[in-house]
Amino acid sequence: MRSHYCGQLNKSLAGQTVELCGWVNRRRDLGGLIFIDMRDREGIVQVVVDPDMAQAHEVASQLRNEFCIKLTGEVRVRPDSQVNKDMTTGEVEVICKDLEIINRADVLPLDFNQTNTEEQRLKYRYLDLRRPEMSDRIKLRAKASSYVRRFLDDNGFLDIETPVLTKATPEGARDYLVPSRVQKGSFYALPQSPQLFKQLLMMSGFDRYYQIVKCFRDEDLRADRQPEFTQIDIETSFMSADQVRAKTEEMVHGMWKDLLNVDLGQFPTMPFSEAIRRFGSDKPDLRNPLELVDVADILKDVEFKVFAGPANDEKGRVAVIRVPGGAKLTRKQIDGYAEFVGIYGAKGLAWMKVNDRAAGMEGIQSPVAKFLNEEVINGILERTGAESGDIILFGADKANVVAEAMGALRLKVGIDLEITDLSAWKPLWVVDFPMFEEDGEGNLHAMHHPFTSPLGITAQQLKENPAAANSNAYDMVINGYEVGGGSVRIHNAEMQAAVFDILGIDAQEQQLKFGFLLEALKYGTPPHAGLAFGLDRLVMLLCGTENIRDVIAFPKTTTASCLLTDAPSLANPAALEELAIAVKVAKKDSE
Amino acid sequence: MRSHYCGQLNKSLAGQTVELCGWVNRRRDLGGLIFIDMRDREGIVQVVVDPDMAQAHEVASQLRNEFCIKLTGEVRVRPDSQVNKDMTTGEVEVICKDLEIINRADVLPLDFNQTNTEEQRLKYRYLDLRRPEMSDRIKLRAKASSYVRRFLDDNGFLDIETPVLTKATPEGARDYLVPSRVQKGSFYALPQSPQLFKQLLMMSGFDRYYQIVKCFRDEDLRADRQPEFTQIDIETSFMSADQVRAKTEEMVHGMWKDLLNVDLGQFPTMPFSEAIRRFGSDKPDLRNPLELVDVADILKDVEFKVFAGPANDEKGRVAVIRVPGGAKLTRKQIDGYAEFVGIYGAKGLAWMKVNDRAAGMEGIQSPVAKFLNEEVINGILERTGAESGDIILFGADKANVVAEAMGALRLKVGIDLEITDLSAWKPLWVVDFPMFEEDGEGNLHAMHHPFTSPLGITAQQLKENPAAANSNAYDMVINGYEVGGGSVRIHNAEMQAAVFDILGIDAQEQQLKFGFLLEALKYGTPPHAGLAFGLDRLVMLLCGTENIRDVIAFPKTTTASCLLTDAPSLANPAALEELAIAVKVAKKDSE
Repeated sequence: MRSHYCGQLNKSLAGQTVELCGWVNRRRDLGGLIFIDMRDREGIVQVVVDPDMAQAHEVASQLRNEFCIKLTGEVRVRPDSQVNKDMTTGEVEVICKDLEIINRADVLPLDFNQTNTEEQRLKYRYLDLRRPEMSDRIKLRAKASSYVRRFLDDNGFLDIETPVLTKATPEGARDYLVPSRVQKGSFYALPQSPQLFKQLLMMSGFDRYYQIVKCFRDEDLRADRQPEFTQIDIETSFMSADQVRAKTEEMVHGMWKDLLNVDLGQFPTMPFSEAIRRFGSDKPDLRNPLELVDVADILKDVEFKVFAGPANDEKGRVAVIRVPGGAKLTRKQIDGYAEFVGIYGAKGLAWMKVNDRAAGMEGIQSPVAKFLNEEVINGILERTGAESGDIILFGADKANVVAEAMGALRLKVGIDLEITDLSAWKPLWVVDFPMFEEDGEGNLHAMHHPFTSPLGITAQQLKENPAAANSNAYDMVINGYEVGGGSVRIHNAEMQAAVFDILGIDAQEQQLKFGFLLEALKYGTPPHAGLAFGLDRLVMLLCGTENIRDVIAFPKTTTASCLLTDAPSLANPAALEELAIAVKVAKKDSE
Repeated sequence: MRSHYCGQLNKSLAGQTVELCGWVNRRRDLGGLIFIDMRDREGIVQVVVDPDMAQAHEVASQLRNEFCIKLTGEVRVRPDSQVNKDMTTGEVEVICKDLEIINRADVLPLDFNQTNTEEQRLKYRYLDLRRPEMSDRIKLRAKASSYVRRFLDDNGFLDIETPVLTKATPEGARDYLVPSRVQKGSFYALPQSPQLFKQLLMMSGFDRYYQIVKCFRDEDLRADRQPEFTQIDIETSFMSADQVRAKTEEMVHGMWKDLLNVDLGQFPTMPFSEAIRRFGSDKPDLRNPLELVDVADILKDVEFKVFAGPANDEKGRVAVIRVPGGAKLTRKQIDGYAEFVGIYGAKGLAWMKVNDRAAGMEGIQSPVAKFLNEEVINGILERTGAESGDIILFGADKANVVAEAMGALRLKVGIDLEITDLSAWKPLWVVDFPMFEEDGEGNLHAMHHPFTSPLGITAQQLKENPAAANSNAYDMVINGYEVGGGSVRIHNAEMQAAVFDILGIDAQEQQLKFGFLLEALKYGTPPHAGLAFGLDRLVMLLCGTENIRDVIAFPKTTTASCLLTDAPSLANPAALEELAIAVKVAKKDSE
């Protein structure tokens, strides 16, 4: 029905007759001349309806915002004085010859010129998606998917679909369950990832697999989580961790180049331990130059127990952050930061302003200075390279509390004081993760997942000292977001059984849950490794938004509801009867 | 770890050293020389291990089938006498220099040289997929998906994901339900198709949408159905039915050309009524030249009630199929066909052999000839163009029974007598479907779905005579398989409400189930139309298999079980508690 998209019109089409279909973005009536800003998915163009075109003018006078219309007109170059530099089509306009209303619109429940509540926007999602800001994100997402597929296709990866109705797997989060009608009392689980299936595909010899696939986690949702999310899932055989990283880095590098014309450069590699030490996080935002600096050795002999305690505790840590220009922070701001680190379990926030580095102790302003002698203070100043006008912020506690609190504080201060370069792109690989985490009660949990291979040791060595083992896992981090993670997998049954043993999964449970995997490992399993990217997160970064709902066409709220369709909803009792399940009376408390 | 895939080796690499990774397909020990057929995803190559290479020979002597190995060797052109024309790599072999066992294999539970039960194959799917016949199908599927995506990307279609956790919709089949933990007592439904979401995307102005997406139907399964299946889902705005058909025909045409190097030609278009009349089916297999020929007018005055009854009944039909060369059918074969049509409700199968067309009534052999006079018989012979050696098979019953029974018989006879050209490709479009079907109790049901636009009439006209209305729907049929179907959708609220009324969906139910759609139709909805292809079926056709499980990596059985992972399975009682649902004691009968 159309010859061009509105957004495609330009000077080269001057004099041509075009047919357009789209929506009335705005209508203005200027002394007889009617101007229509007409919108379709590619953009907006100005249409002029002259009173001389009586029929078209009569129709145009009925138009209201968001009417769906079709028109025929001639492209005309605007006089220089009327060129609109804010519109991509601003050099031209369309002189309307014929105009037809395809469908009328009531007054919209959303006002595109104002800020609407997110609840309203989600309820009328189909209208919110008409806003160019929103539709551009969905279009960029489509381009990102398309880029990824072409890259992987061209690199010999096979797109293979894995089941959605599957068996519960132990990714750590809760599964969504689906009752079976045929086998009453039994349930499918929606996959948290296609992990085991992709490993089985390697055992089948497919060599290079990928899938862009929905995964599901029934978790309590945070701002950047959705119950269903999309993974770029990749697995390869006979490739080392280095090779997998190089290939997937090439892919992400190409995405940024292709979609944003940004060169991400080569991604540095950083061991997990270094990331925690320098940035207090396993997904450091390297746009922020602030670092944690360890000073336990300097403070271990002071009498001030707040510092000396953790400094002398094997599980403790004392670290400072030097904030250039931070001496200008007010007492109120510092109190705010003290409260902030409290969220992460820190009991307070000691600080030291360096008002005048040349003035010695006179130039130091700090509530804790009186507990420290000059040598100690000089030691800290020297190690951090502090200069006049800086502030030094102290973290002293259990090592994990210091890392989390100071890591978060680093990010916050970096943004607040405009130290973080928000226009930069800082990707990196984090590697050499510990194989297991201790849960505080002496139990070990897999840090990645139980199919991850340890790095450079035998099953016997792993059993002897599991806590010391590193895994051959890797995360890709961009600007502080973990956008992807993966590992070399275990490809022999003995190692797999050793890991299950360490995790306290007994033989019976191993058989019940992973019998097919242990069986499969017996038949010439190739070495294999892979990785999964969070597509939603990648697209968030590409779009420059921090709201995951902005990059999903029909997202759910933090209570996992769809405000548009009103899902979830009550089920038909007959359907439940057929499934042989009953709803138990809901408890008052949300439990 | 490899320099080449086994299947890629050819004469151009002669003299080169290659590194290969893969599996032992077969090992033969011929007087010291060990021959290994080594396999990877691209094919098989012969490796020769000479006793002179002592280390490699020692390793090679340990090899058993399906060991995973890595080797270095030199490509050598085979002497002419030893070229193996059955292998794509049969002109070369690899002289092994170095050989390493990566992983050993127990004796396989499947024997690749024998036929295994499908149950065994599904349980050890990862091994069954190692068979080139199987892996080729999965690879062809990946190529088909990739082709479709490139075509649609290049034609301006946007890949947009729609939710999996959604609200029950009325596609006709049972929904899979997913209990919500957050909103206890409420359920999501897995989508039977993204129908309403794709329509909403058109209302948002995305103009051209596609998605290759899993859909779900909790139906009793037949051989060619799976509980989860994959749809190529397409929707467009401002395009006519003709344009949608032309564009998607171009896509399928390109798939066959690209993947099979087959030119499907231009697809003919056939009205539903013609398809039923000539072939007794709305998905006619045009590889089969047999047709149903109506003869009610000839038979309406005969005394034989079996014919005259339906011939004079408005809802009856009398049709024959002339089978060239069918006079050779034995009595037993004909009895078999009579039994076969009984499955479709036919009460018998009258037949007439034309042993000698020149001999008049003498040349006719038929149990029913005695009930018919010469004029009637000649009328039938003339209309069908029967010749000596043919048989004429009769269907006389309610019109739908005749269509189903004779339509099925046509297919069966076509195969049995090798009349159907199994090497041919016969695509077509079936169009002009009735808008509604009557269920025998006076209720009308949507033949396509309730969002389908009627063809060329107003809402008022539709209400006045719904049974007479045709819809603007279309199916793509290839070789008797419905591979895709779609329609122009309703884009105004009045028409949509009229259809809901006719279907007996009252205002309250409309609001509850489709309130958001009716609301959305108020805001300048564009005309839109779309289509969905069954990817599994398309790939079945491309692969030349009739078993849908052959084209799915991890399929389910007809009881919707995964024999590999043993899904569905019992749920953790704590998980059910959290979901506030209880399993009711399973009844003895499967109900």
